[in-house]
Amino acid sequence: MVIRDKIFSTITTVFKRHGGVTIDTPVFELRDVLTGKYGEDSKLIYDLADQGGEICSLRYDLTVPFARWLAMNPMIQNIKRYHIAKVYRRDQPAMSKGRMREFYQCDFDIAGVYDPMLPDAEVLRVAKEILDSLNIGKYTIKINHRKILDGLFEVCGVPADKIRPISSAVDKLDKMPWEDVRKEMTEEKGLDPEAADKIGQYVMKKGGKDLLDDLKTMTELTSNASFAAGLADMELLIDYLEVFGVMPVLSFDLSLARGLDYYTGVIYEVVTEASAPPSGKPAKKGPKPKNDDPDADRSNDDSIGVGSIAAGGRYDELVGMFANSAKGRIPCVGISFGVDRIFSITKARMTEAVRGNEVDVYVMAFGGKGFTGLVKERMQVCKTLWDAGIKAEYFFKVKPKLPQQFASAEKNGIPFAVVLGEDELAAGVVKIKEMGLPEGHPEKNGVDVKLDDLVNEVKARLASKGLHEEKHAKAVEEVQLEAKDAA
Amino acid sequence: MVIRDKIFSTITTVFKRHGGVTIDTPVFELRDVLTGKYGEDSKLIYDLADQGGEICSLRYDLTVPFARWLAMNPMIQNIKRYHIAKVYRRDQPAMSKGRMREFYQCDFDIAGVYDPMLPDAEVLRVAKEILDSLNIGKYTIKINHRKILDGLFEVCGVPADKIRPISSAVDKLDKMPWEDVRKEMTEEKGLDPEAADKIGQYVMKKGGKDLLDDLKTMTELTSNASFAAGLADMELLIDYLEVFGVMPVLSFDLSLARGLDYYTGVIYEVVTEASAPPSGKPAKKGPKPKNDDPDADRSNDDSIGVGSIAAGGRYDELVGMFANSAKGRIPCVGISFGVDRIFSITKARMTEAVRGNEVDVYVMAFGGKGFTGLVKERMQVCKTLWDAGIKAEYFFKVKPKLPQQFASAEKNGIPFAVVLGEDELAAGVVKIKEMGLPEGHPEKNGVDVKLDDLVNEVKARLASKGLHEEKHAKAVEEVQLEAKDAA
Repeated sequence: MVIRDKIFSTITTVFKRHGGVTIDTPVFELRDVLTGKYGEDSKLIYDLADQGGEICSLRYDLTVPFARWLAMNPMIQNIKRYHIAKVYRRDQPAMSKGRMREFYQCDFDIAGVYDPMLPDAEVLRVAKEILDSLNIGKYTIKINHRKILDGLFEVCGVPADKIRPISSAVDKLDKMPWEDVRKEMTEEKGLDPEAADKIGQYVMKKGGKDLLDDLKTMTELTSNASFAAGLADMELLIDYLEVFGVMPVLSFDLSLARGLDYYTGVIYEVVTEASAPPSGKPAKKGPKPKNDDPDADRSNDDSIGVGSIAAGGRYDELVGMFANSAKGRIPCVGISFGVDRIFSITKARMTEAVRGNEVDVYVMAFGGKGFTGLVKERMQVCKTLWDAGIKAEYFFKVKPKLPQQFASAEKNGIPFAVVLGEDELAAGVVKIKEMGLPEGHPEKNGVDVKLDDLVNEVKARLASKGLHEEKHAKAVEEVQLEAKDAA
Repeated sequence: MVIRDKIFSTITTVFKRHGGVTIDTPVFELRDVLTGKYGEDSKLIYDLADQGGEICSLRYDLTVPFARWLAMNPMIQNIKRYHIAKVYRRDQPAMSKGRMREFYQCDFDIAGVYDPMLPDAEVLRVAKEILDSLNIGKYTIKINHRKILDGLFEVCGVPADKIRPISSAVDKLDKMPWEDVRKEMTEEKGLDPEAADKIGQYVMKKGGKDLLDDLKTMTELTSNASFAAGLADMELLIDYLEVFGVMPVLSFDLSLARGLDYYTGVIYEVVTEASAPPSGKPAKKGPKPKNDDPDADRSNDDSIGVGSIAAGGRYDELVGMFANSAKGRIPCVGISFGVDRIFSITKARMTEAVRGNEVDVYVMAFGGKGFTGLVKERMQVCKTLWDAGIKAEYFFKVKPKLPQQFASAEKNGIPFAVVLGEDELAAGVVKIKEMGLPEGHPEKNGVDVKLDDLVNEVKARLASKGLHEEKHAKAVEEVQLEAKDAA
């Protein structure tokens, strides 16, 4: 949870940097609100039992609840909103890959009627800032456009009612070979094999701005209105993303389709090298291109894995589906980060142990024969430290043994002990002992300080270790999670 | 959500100060796990539809899931755990009082075999630190002991099988008059009226250490083993709470019973003056006692309202109910804060408006005839600010009008504008303008700065307003939420 907290705070910082405000929508939605929004995945929605009252389901994502909320609040015509919360899917969990029935999503969305591609560019810039701040290694933002896909399918002769299922088959190209996808399209979904082959000729294409220039020359495609509109969007977006410095991590990928029904424009998905490359497909040997190398061709880097850690796109019709008036038809674009997958990657990349808790001072006591345990005195010293904002604890026994107390402090990696003795206390003195000092260190056995000076002495020692009262946690996490690029 | 975030961070800071670590348990529990743990409130549990697989319900609180988790992880024999998450109840919502079907709880629990009352005292100290840090006004921690209550009921002649229902009736004494409670006990729950009257004679008692001394003289009660054990616990606890400075906010209240079945020892509940005093019962006139006045008699202050904002107690048997072996029978004590109620109180006490977002700089452009809108230039300046960790935004139009841009900045109370003009940009200059300066102020029309110096100039201005890049949020919140005691 220490790592997860750090991921949340990194993401939240970027969301706020871009003017995001948070809105909390309920975990329940009326079942009708969720129906028909998730394509083939609708079977994964959790329903609540009918115990009287409304028929509800658990939210499947944060996007549909946000759209429903916007439609219900027509005085809000534009907003940059973020939301960090759990969503629920009746899936087979695969813990090691961070796929669970209940998991966190961190969403950022821009709603409002604006000039084309400006909010879309900002969402992708937000993605890059977040991904650069997390310790996840090399990543790629794959991008495509629903209108490009729809146009392409039209040109290839896919009937209108088959466009969504065929799109969903194409989306599996990152997980299975073309032959299997083709089989799904022709055998399962009844597509004309000729149309399938034509699709295959296009959807393997990926690249950067070069692909854009390439596609502009293909008149068969550009003469299709939908394709042309999508391509114009993409050209403008790439223009803006160059300003925002996002292009080096982008791959324009015609096979990216995204299964959800509600996308209408740009779609994207973030994959990382660390997110489990398909087994049986060896990682490329030799030096790997770096994120910050704009000349590196990332589009064909087959070391890039399958699991996406973030995804999103433009959904201009979804809010309108819940709205009563034209005023409620607000176009939106957004992205959703899967914290559990990011967590799996981050954890696997961590080199240092995470401390058990964040306590800085363990207050203990010792004494000879007739030792009372000094429990109230230990409590009093803790109170003094807590009052000063210092994280402290003591052993919950009236008469604990000294080794017990040290063991408890060591278990959690607590850096300092304050040791109380009866004679010392009578003289107004306690001992501060830094844990884990080597034999022979001048302070190995601790230093006596006046009880009245204890808070200042502890603060000075925490500061000299780069720790500060109540900032310790952050400091530790930042050191632990410092990005160490494996390349 | 800005206020709610601040409440979360205040609470988390205190939890960590006492060595708390967080654990995230799932929102689903097997239905059997929740059955029989919540007394009369069990009817409020939400069930999931049976869609195949396990029969699940949504968590009703965070305590039972924690106990189940502890039992399933027998290598963990002690832990100070906190958890901030939502729980679910099929209740009639009363939004204005912060009672909802879905709401946040913030729980802190200490699990482990320890010397009596040491963890209990620490939990109450944690409560006091949190309550003192929140802007909620005067509050009281009401405290009682299950064994004291059970003993008292025995002495009054309540049959063993009626102790829980009678206890639950007594618990309503803060919401209804004694006559109604007596009626519930005798008419609804079939208690002998003589026993009811005897109970009435005791449960109206409340006080501080004086009540403890008073009870110790009542041999009718102290000769009961359960009562005596409870009273000994309470004496020790009060002794420790004096060391921790908690006594001034404590009220030992024999009518406090808490409905949940799983408590076995000390129980407590926090009420505040601000949490809606019962209507028809006028608030006491004249000066009110202050929290920090140890001599103030708080126990009979009838301005103290009914809604509890935190509650908890000791539950020594709950973990054992889920455990397979004796090793799994871990005693626990904990407290749960109701953030939504705290939020309602805090919001009502706030005197300043909350800003729309946290953005510090709005980047805008203006120009005369043939004005291009400078959209890429605005994007470039935003990128520069974001790269420096400064919160910035711009208007999502290619050619926006200047008043539109100012209106958008003003709407969110953004303190600075950076204004781009074509001629100025050509000379490498932009204008920084502090929003809302009065007429006649020397910088009313802004100051020209070199584009290369922009980041430093903005940072200096933010710092001079007490704002710092990415610390702004915290600063604003702290000012807004600064406790202003109404007394």
